Amino acid sequence: MPKPRLKIIPLGGLSEIGKNMMIMEYEDDIIVIDSGLMFPEEGMFGIDLVIPDISYLLENQKKVKGIVVTHGHEDHIGALPYLLPRLNVPVYSTKLTRGLISVKLKERKALTGATLKTVPFGGKVNIGKFAVEFFPVCHSIPDSAGLIIHTPIGTVIHSGDFKLDYTPVSGKPTDLSRLAKLGGEGVLLLLSDSTYAELPGYTPSERVVGETLDRVIAEAPGRVVVTTFSSLVSRVQQVINAAAKYQRRVFIVGKSMSDTVRMAIDLGYLRVPDGIIGRMDELKGMPNDKVVLVTTGSQGEPTSALVRMANRDHRQVHIVRDDTVVISATPIPGNEGLVNRTVDNLFKQGARVFYDRVASVHVHGHASQEELKLLLNLVKPKFFMPIHGEYRHLSLHGRMAESVGIASDRIFLLEDGDILELNPQSGKINGKVTSSNVYVDGLSVGDINGVVLRDRRMLSKDGIVMVIIAINRQTGKLVGRPDIISRGFVDTRESRDMIDESRDLVAETLNHSGDRPADWGFTHTKVRDTLSKFYYEQTRRRPMVLPFMVKV
Amino acid sequence: MPKPRLKIIPLGGLSEIGKNMMIMEYEDDIIVIDSGLMFPEEGMFGIDLVIPDISYLLENQKKVKGIVVTHGHEDHIGALPYLLPRLNVPVYSTKLTRGLISVKLKERKALTGATLKTVPFGGKVNIGKFAVEFFPVCHSIPDSAGLIIHTPIGTVIHSGDFKLDYTPVSGKPTDLSRLAKLGGEGVLLLLSDSTYAELPGYTPSERVVGETLDRVIAEAPGRVVVTTFSSLVSRVQQVINAAAKYQRRVFIVGKSMSDTVRMAIDLGYLRVPDGIIGRMDELKGMPNDKVVLVTTGSQGEPTSALVRMANRDHRQVHIVRDDTVVISATPIPGNEGLVNRTVDNLFKQGARVFYDRVASVHVHGHASQEELKLLLNLVKPKFFMPIHGEYRHLSLHGRMAESVGIASDRIFLLEDGDILELNPQSGKINGKVTSSNVYVDGLSVGDINGVVLRDRRMLSKDGIVMVIIAINRQTGKLVGRPDIISRGFVDTRESRDMIDESRDLVAETLNHSGDRPADWGFTHTKVRDTLSKFYYEQTRRRPMVLPFMVKV
Repeated sequence: MPKPRLKIIPLGGLSEIGKNMMIMEYEDDIIVIDSGLMFPEEGMFGIDLVIPDISYLLENQKKVKGIVVTHGHEDHIGALPYLLPRLNVPVYSTKLTRGLISVKLKERKALTGATLKTVPFGGKVNIGKFAVEFFPVCHSIPDSAGLIIHTPIGTVIHSGDFKLDYTPVSGKPTDLSRLAKLGGEGVLLLLSDSTYAELPGYTPSERVVGETLDRVIAEAPGRVVVTTFSSLVSRVQQVINAAAKYQRRVFIVGKSMSDTVRMAIDLGYLRVPDGIIGRMDELKGMPNDKVVLVTTGSQGEPTSALVRMANRDHRQVHIVRDDTVVISATPIPGNEGLVNRTVDNLFKQGARVFYDRVASVHVHGHASQEELKLLLNLVKPKFFMPIHGEYRHLSLHGRMAESVGIASDRIFLLEDGDILELNPQSGKINGKVTSSNVYVDGLSVGDINGVVLRDRRMLSKDGIVMVIIAINRQTGKLVGRPDIISRGFVDTRESRDMIDESRDLVAETLNHSGDRPADWGFTHTKVRDTLSKFYYEQTRRRPMVLPFMVKV
Repeated sequence: MPKPRLKIIPLGGLSEIGKNMMIMEYEDDIIVIDSGLMFPEEGMFGIDLVIPDISYLLENQKKVKGIVVTHGHEDHIGALPYLLPRLNVPVYSTKLTRGLISVKLKERKALTGATLKTVPFGGKVNIGKFAVEFFPVCHSIPDSAGLIIHTPIGTVIHSGDFKLDYTPVSGKPTDLSRLAKLGGEGVLLLLSDSTYAELPGYTPSERVVGETLDRVIAEAPGRVVVTTFSSLVSRVQQVINAAAKYQRRVFIVGKSMSDTVRMAIDLGYLRVPDGIIGRMDELKGMPNDKVVLVTTGSQGEPTSALVRMANRDHRQVHIVRDDTVVISATPIPGNEGLVNRTVDNLFKQGARVFYDRVASVHVHGHASQEELKLLLNLVKPKFFMPIHGEYRHLSLHGRMAESVGIASDRIFLLEDGDILELNPQSGKINGKVTSSNVYVDGLSVGDINGVVLRDRRMLSKDGIVMVIIAINRQTGKLVGRPDIISRGFVDTRESRDMIDESRDLVAETLNHSGDRPADWGFTHTKVRDTLSKFYYEQTRRRPMVLPFMVKV
């Protein structure tokens, strides 16, 4: 009888492998690590969100014993509101992460009935045959954890999203001693964050940004507006520290930033000296050089406070010459254009703008190459599986593992849905589970399929032409002249003649196919092909042509 | 009577100011500098190209005396096929640029009747009241020029797209001595390239890439595939040099790369040792470690040779383990996703991949901050106008000019269409000419307007629902049941019930508005609003709803 094997399955939405969800299975027990969402990529027209396909979990519902969450970013918690109602198992996380999960579940009315359990760093929880221990890692949100998973065949370490940073602004540094100790005892498998495997060297400490913010605020002739991710609490802490140092008051602009700051203060993740934070109604009387505004909008989101300020469209704050704006973030891939337009508009208002390409106003939250090698050296895993990155990141990370001495047959590069089967001696990729994308569009989860997306793509390119053909029910003959309506195809005023000509063309086509009047399928295809050809010749465009027959 | 003034007008398509076209006007003479196109930005659905709006030139047709082109990139020559048929004036450029313009005009059947004149470096040509001298600059295409424009009120220097590079691979270094001499004599205005004004330091020499290519080819265990822009002739030269050094033969894959290489050899811009370049039919017999392939695809273009290789879809070349792929280019903004997918797929085929984020395989073609300051220092212009960049680049470049001692009231930041009026003593921005985008979609130039684009955007998001309502011509009453067809909205099988329900809803709405049966405008709006509301409640989507009435 074959011995049971440990199975590891990355299961994500889009191109970053294992980022949104990982499955760990041994005999009759499954634990799920993270349950995140992805934002749609280019070409996913009208899609709001993408979540992992959990068919495999639903098929093995009885085995699933719990969900372990590493940290509170959307791409690690955002699918929980969709998953928990279908798979109600306990969710384990650290304190702030739990708070953020509650907020998320509440928004989507999925909090009732959910079992959220807090696990302190160093604490261990038994979930089926697994015992999971949380250890602190540095990342761009407080209370981020890596996982030490004790399995029946050995210890698995999951780095979570992490970087080193020996001098974090808040929270603890990544617990290297614990990892070194485990490395000495023997680690079966390391799963490690590959997001920045392309970057040489070390990721700088958050302190570097603190120094820049300090200098910018010290030298600013007028107001300072700082924008960052609301979850990047340590960055907000640094702004508050610098403001306090230079006798400025801090005003929080916008709901999401206010909510997060309040929650971070309440849970003890943000230390705010008395009287520093002002209410917006106190802003008016303040001298400009005594003001720091903190706001969202670092991704150029069209409805954010910063973008409204940049467009002279904010109710309370108008950018004036000598304002200083700090964009303390990097554009997420796909947002570059929005961020660039925002910076351009701020410059046009006369502001001084500091952003990632021209000043050290941001460091990212993931380990660079030397940190990844350090982790590999400390943990000395028997097997290695790079995760959290696109395929090229995993490839580069895999080569780094080879370079520090891990044999290539012990390094596993998986794609989402691939099953890694491990026993204490060896491993192999064996089989695949369903792992297609599940699209969320409005209220519906999963009804958007390839056909709908293909239609949206086609409509977006050259629009649509509808042909309405009235046919006499008795004779099968055309009644009146065919009607044509188009949207997104041509300027209908300028192209009136062409559209008119195409109406005659339809009538002609119908008359010529008079021998098969009843065969609508045939006529439909003929009208569509004739018009498509005509329009292409006239315009070199290919609108969707949709003939419709009304029997009268 | 007011003295005549020199007018300078940047006129582009999209966000980079003055990149695609600059107008210079004095009394009854206008010269046009460059005539380029831009590729559509996000949200410009179905648009093929964007070209500058030349209304101002057409209104002043008699004044236009010539077009001066700085170099042969698409964004500087690509609008000529659209412009010349409407504004047939001589086009002045260096030799290779002229060759590329011919090719472009031929493709679009606009070569006949065009007057193309070659001007050698150092040569001067009189165009109306202007005398224009071409001087060599380094850029990512051979034969790039800057312009010295002698005007009745003083000398204007236009940098073109440029960088320094004291050791270019081919061609001459940027002619600093000439510029220094002019600086000593007095320069009225400097127009200078701001594309990389965000980057500190100096742009590295092309030689740096040569060293990387040499090392990569020396160490490659099997075939080497190098991809770059076909116009980056010096890069192809470096590949040929390294291949020759390591006794490899070079195979050019794909039509556009072959065409450019042939033209570059013919015109003397590429030096190729005998026997180095092989024909594709000789490839089969070659040992892998004796082969270098040169191809396009550096932007992840879906039909390029490299992308086909990455997708196992190329007729002649299949990527195998131990192949080395060098992507010797940077993704143009907007192409990152395509390039990333290509790299991922090459890694999946087992290739070793070198690309800009992990190796020094590319240097860009524009000056960085210290080079821009050096130019300002040498030229010592009285007035300064940063060009070729988005607004933030111009702002940063403007501040650099201030930092080297140019008074802020002599620095002019324009947007496209703005008119800078200069006399020998002072300048001001005075008025604006039409400068909207002209969209090319298929055969049409300029018929695509805001309405068509808005429709395409709306269609792309949530699709379209058409409602066909047959009304009795005499009674104004509904005949039969309304029909509904949708595309890109929902999965029509899964949502059959909802669509059915909405048909009844239309019938109900029509019956209730029975008192105004003839008022189709009213009914139309009512049906549209009722359905939009219903669909939004049911799906949280907002398809375009298009009711259509057939009178029977």
